This record gives sequence, C-alpha cells and structure tokens, in this order.
Amino acid sequence: MEKSPEQEHPKKAFGWAARDPSGVLSPFKFSRRATGDKDVTFRVLYCGMCHSDLHMVKNEWGMSTYPLVPGHEIAGEVTEVGSKVEKVKVGDKVGVGCVVGACHSCENCNNDLEVYCPQMILTYSNIYHDGTLTYGGYSDTMVANERYIIRFPENVPLDASAPLLCAGITVYSPLRYYGLAEPGKHIGVVGLGGLGHVAVKFAKAFGAKVTVISTSASKKDEALQHLGADSFLISRDQEQMQAAKNTFDGILDTVSAVHPLLPLIDLLKSHGKLVLLGGSEEPLELPVFPLITGRKMVAGSATGGIKEIQEMIEFAAKHNITADIEVISMEYVNTAMERLAKGDVRYRFVIDIGNTLPVTKP
Amino acid sequence: MEKSPEQEHPKKAFGWAARDPSGVLSPFKFSRRATGDKDVTFRVLYCGMCHSDLHMVKNEWGMSTYPLVPGHEIAGEVTEVGSKVEKVKVGDKVGVGCVVGACHSCENCNNDLEVYCPQMILTYSNIYHDGTLTYGGYSDTMVANERYIIRFPENVPLDASAPLLCAGITVYSPLRYYGLAEPGKHIGVVGLGGLGHVAVKFAKAFGAKVTVISTSASKKDEALQHLGADSFLISRDQEQMQAAKNTFDGILDTVSAVHPLLPLIDLLKSHGKLVLLGGSEEPLELPVFPLITGRKMVAGSATGGIKEIQEMIEFAAKHNITADIEVISMEYVNTAMERLAKGDVRYRFVIDIGNTLPVTKP
Repeated sequence: MEKSPEQEHPKKAFGWAARDPSGVLSPFKFSRRATGDKDVTFRVLYCGMCHSDLHMVKNEWGMSTYPLVPGHEIAGEVTEVGSKVEKVKVGDKVGVGCVVGACHSCENCNNDLEVYCPQMILTYSNIYHDGTLTYGGYSDTMVANERYIIRFPENVPLDASAPLLCAGITVYSPLRYYGLAEPGKHIGVVGLGGLGHVAVKFAKAFGAKVTVISTSASKKDEALQHLGADSFLISRDQEQMQAAKNTFDGILDTVSAVHPLLPLIDLLKSHGKLVLLGGSEEPLELPVFPLITGRKMVAGSATGGIKEIQEMIEFAAKHNITADIEVISMEYVNTAMERLAKGDVRYRFVIDIGNTLPVTKP
Repeated sequence: MEKSPEQEHPKKAFGWAARDPSGVLSPFKFSRRATGDKDVTFRVLYCGMCHSDLHMVKNEWGMSTYPLVPGHEIAGEVTEVGSKVEKVKVGDKVGVGCVVGACHSCENCNNDLEVYCPQMILTYSNIYHDGTLTYGGYSDTMVANERYIIRFPENVPLDASAPLLCAGITVYSPLRYYGLAEPGKHIGVVGLGGLGHVAVKFAKAFGAKVTVISTSASKKDEALQHLGADSFLISRDQEQMQAAKNTFDGILDTVSAVHPLLPLIDLLKSHGKLVLLGGSEEPLELPVFPLITGRKMVAGSATGGIKEIQEMIEFAAKHNITADIEVISMEYVNTAMERLAKGDVRYRFVIDIGNTLPVTKP
C-alpha cells in the first residue's frame, strides 16, 4: 500500500496545495525525503507565482497530479547538505527553478540542457526517481540534488530575484541561443507581463534597442519610462505596424492566447527570428511565403539548463536586474491567482513564505 | 509611348511566352538590351522547368506580368562580354538563376545575399533597372550583369546542371545556413520532386544520414536504390512515424500543398529544425507546445546568394551531383507543364533550347 504524502518521507513538510481542478489552494501537510549524499535541503523564504502555476492547479494542460503544491521560482537558505555536496554549504542563499531531475546521460544532459532531457522531472506534479510525487515551493522546505541548486550572489534581493529562476531564464536563454543577445540588435517584446518585463531588462542589458509591442496603449509610459524600453508599438495601429516593418532582428513573443503571427513576422528583417514563449494550447496560423522570402524563422524555447540559469543569475546580479514584484502573504494566494488570471499584477507575485507560511500552519 | 517588346531593345530575341493567365506558351518575338560594360550575353542552350514557372504562367501568385517568358534555370555559352567584365570570357559555359538584379548597397547585398535584397529583381516578370520587363530562359539569348552570372566547370553536363541554379541552391543553402550540412546529421526530405531529389543528393554528399518522408510507398525503391537515401518513411504509417519520433536533426519540407506540420515537428530531436521550401499559399497550422518544449524551429529559406550558388555549383561538380532530368523539345513545353502539374516527371524537365527552339521560329 502506498504511504500518504505525510508519511512517505522522514521529514515533515508544510505547504499549500490544490486538491482538485478547482485550483483552490489550502494548507497541506506532507513530507520531504532525507538529505541524500548529493542533496541540498533549504528553508524556503520566497516563491514566485508563475503563470504556469495557474494553469497547473486547474489542470488546464491535462498533466496535473493532486495534491499539487505549485511553485518553481523558489529561493531560500541552505539548512543541510549531503556528504558529497560540493556546490553550497549551510547558510548559503540558493534557489530551485522548474526542474529537479533528469537522466544525466543523454545528449541534452551532457550539454547542460537538462530541461530538454526526455526524462526531465519537473519541480512539482511529476514523479521523482524514488517514485514519489514532486512538490513545489509553496512550502516551508525544499530538497534537491545539488545539480539543480542555483547559488544567489550575496548582494541580490531574494524576493525580487526568485522569479528570475523561471521568468528570467525563459527570456535570457532564447536571447542567447538565437543570437539576439548582442549590442545594436533591435529586439521586440510582445506582451508586458511576468516574462515580458524582464525580457526588456535583459535585452537592454545586452545592449539591444528594445521595442515593446502591445495591444494596449496603457502600458506605454510604464514600458518607456519605468522599464527603459526604447520604443513602443501598438499592435492594433496599422500605420505604426506598417512603418516598423522589416526593422526587427528578433521578437520574443510572450503571449499565450491565440494571436496572429503574420504582423510579427512582417516586423522582422530578413533572417529575423520570432521566438514563441507563451504556450498557446491551440495551434497558430503560420504564413509560409514571408518565412521563405525573408529566410525568417518561428521558434520556441523552454526555460534553460541549470548551468545557464546560474550564468543568468550572475549576469542579472552584475546588471542589477530583478523582477518587479508584489510581495504577498501565503493566505493571499487564492486572491493572487484570480488577479493573475486577469493580468492584474505588475509584474510578478512573490509569496513571502518565510514570514507568512508558518502563520497558516494548522 | 512605350515601345513594343520587339522594339524596346536593339538585339532581337526569340522565345516562348504566356500571354495571359491561361498559361499557354507560344512563340514570342522580343528583344534584349545591348551588352553593357558589365554585362554578359550568352546563347541559351538549356533551361530547366521549375514548379514556380507553372505558378507564374498562370498568375497563381498574383504577381505575373504578361507577356511572360519563364525560365530561371538557364545554362548556355557566352557570346559577348562588356568591356569591364572580369568574371568570364566568350565561349565560357555559364548560367543564370532566379535573380538578375538588386540594389548592391543594402546589408543583404553587402553580405552576398542578393535574393533577400528588398529591391531584388527576378529573372522574369519583374521590372529591370532600365524600366523594361525581364524575360527568362525559355528563349534563345540571355543578358545579365556579370554579378549574376554563374560559371559552370568544364566537366559538368549543362542540361542536368541547369536545374541546380534554382532547385539545387534552394536545398543547398538551408542545409548550410541552418547547420545541417554536417557529417552524421540525420536529415529528412519531405516530398521527392524537383527539390527533394537533389536535396537527398546534397545531404548525402555532406555526409548526412538521409531519410525520405513521403505519403506514397511507391517512391521507396527509387529513393533508396537510385537516389541513395538511407531510409524511407511513409508519413501515413502511424507506427513508422511514432518509431521515428525525436530522431531528426533537420527536415527539408518541399511540399507546397497544405499539410500538417505536427507530425514533422514530432520527428525532430530537441533543437531540430523544420525548413519549409514549398510555398504554400494558405497558412499552415503551427502547434506551439512542441516548439517550446523541444526548442524547435520552423523556418523558411529562398534560393541563395550568387556567391553561394557558385560555391554550390563547384560542390556539385566535385561530388558529381546533377539533377535527374527528362530533356524535352521547346514544342513539348505545354504538355510538360500539364505533366508538371500532376507531378509526372522524374524529376525535372529541361528544355533543349539550343537544338529545338530555333525550329519553332516563325
């Protein structure tokens, strides 16, 4: 007989979980494994709320297992390390992103691209090597193999850095991989949300000219004055879009709703790259002629490998890049989920786990 | 008043032209410009029939101007060179592909990518710098700026090499540009027609493992035994397709009809590239999740720059790559167009202009 979540591991743990596709989160007692030879255990201090947490608690991607403790933008402080751990020591500030396991022997793993390993294990709602369900960062403690541990430099704010572990790497990695992280490139960012606002910051730090492309004029001041974008395009304004044709080297498209790609492809110079980061469930319409005549590409990108996340965190520290956040208490999480669904956040909720989760303990 | 095609230039020329969207070709008297300082004039000996000739004579892409002399796989022998021409001399075997002009000052022109210049001039049915209509290779003579002249090595058969000027470069260029021209790569070729059959040959010459992907089992023997492909996948066979998932580094998709991309994207390894070469007029359905989770791309590619065409021709000569052709007479061209529309050719019609065009002269 399978043991209950509370009994299957030796270490008591506490968090908030969704129990069914209603997605409503509530206090949840479970357990974490003992710190293995190569494991790092840490006290969770902050956890960012990613848009995919919202999809997952409601099983909108059809891949959720309950009880489901979300959270893959996890930051905290090391409390215990296994005997063979070399990466960190007790007291270090660390984090865990979207992935906690992979095969470590395939081509992707050998190239530090664990997230693309066919046996990749997600931080929550996946089955770990020991056969138990993984639980995310809406919880008091976390344990992970040291390979999946990210070190935070001493000087960075943990709350505003936690979202970089997913939102940050999701925009940093494609900028690098697709050759867009170079001074002088003209980069478009479609959608100014959790991903989009850090995309502007990273692209600017790489020396690019950055244009925010949005359906809504209301975000213009914010984009230009607060986030430092160089220009702003209203995608519904035919004249503006026409004038901007063939001027972009690359566009990061963070929109997950169904939307037309042709206007974005038309914005690209020849050899330009449109990178889709928002996971639309419905297929999009792909026009073929403009791709051929301009040798353009439409590509995807997931988060990034662990080595690259570490590199991104160090780059962010050097350039003072953090997410713009609204820190909330654990008890506020269901309200925050509702606001997230409406896009009512500038730009990332971060749960103050360290100070507010214990209060909710039954 | 505009001069007639027969009078606008000093040199008499003769070819076959379509006069309207019926697409029917018939004998046509016109004229060619005098050989300018940097021009090369040559007697046309062979001209390949590209699938786009078929679209263009019928104005299926809405960009045709009549009278329309098709043909952009043109091979012949130099009869006159301008005073400043350095590239070739009288008697040399030369060719012209899809492009005869561009701005020569933009970034693409500076990078030898004339075909992506916004002011690029197509070999036929476009307006040249002097304001006159361009006429293609279904004609007795050709004149072009030396920049657009390709030199054929002495040892290659002109008839079977002519199609390389469009079909050849259209597959060679993306194999190179997208990093697929490397030994050990697994390359798929979708559709075994004019483009597909030379794609197999070039990919094999680069040292790739080549799999032909086709709806029809009837082409299996041809693909494996005659063209030298390593394997063959029937795209309607679910079991075969399932077994081949995640095994391709890149796929060249030559199909111009509307067709599903998901099965092809699924065949790609992570970071794999699906390159569309067939110009479907209708948009295709693009699934987004598989692109993101596998960091895959769907890209396009046109022909290639003049410098790369020359490189391709030399590579082809070194590796004995030519097109498989059926040589026809000028008078057979309308029948050949009908057969081309049905895919009834293995794999390229080449018109024997040198021997059969003069016979049709009124």
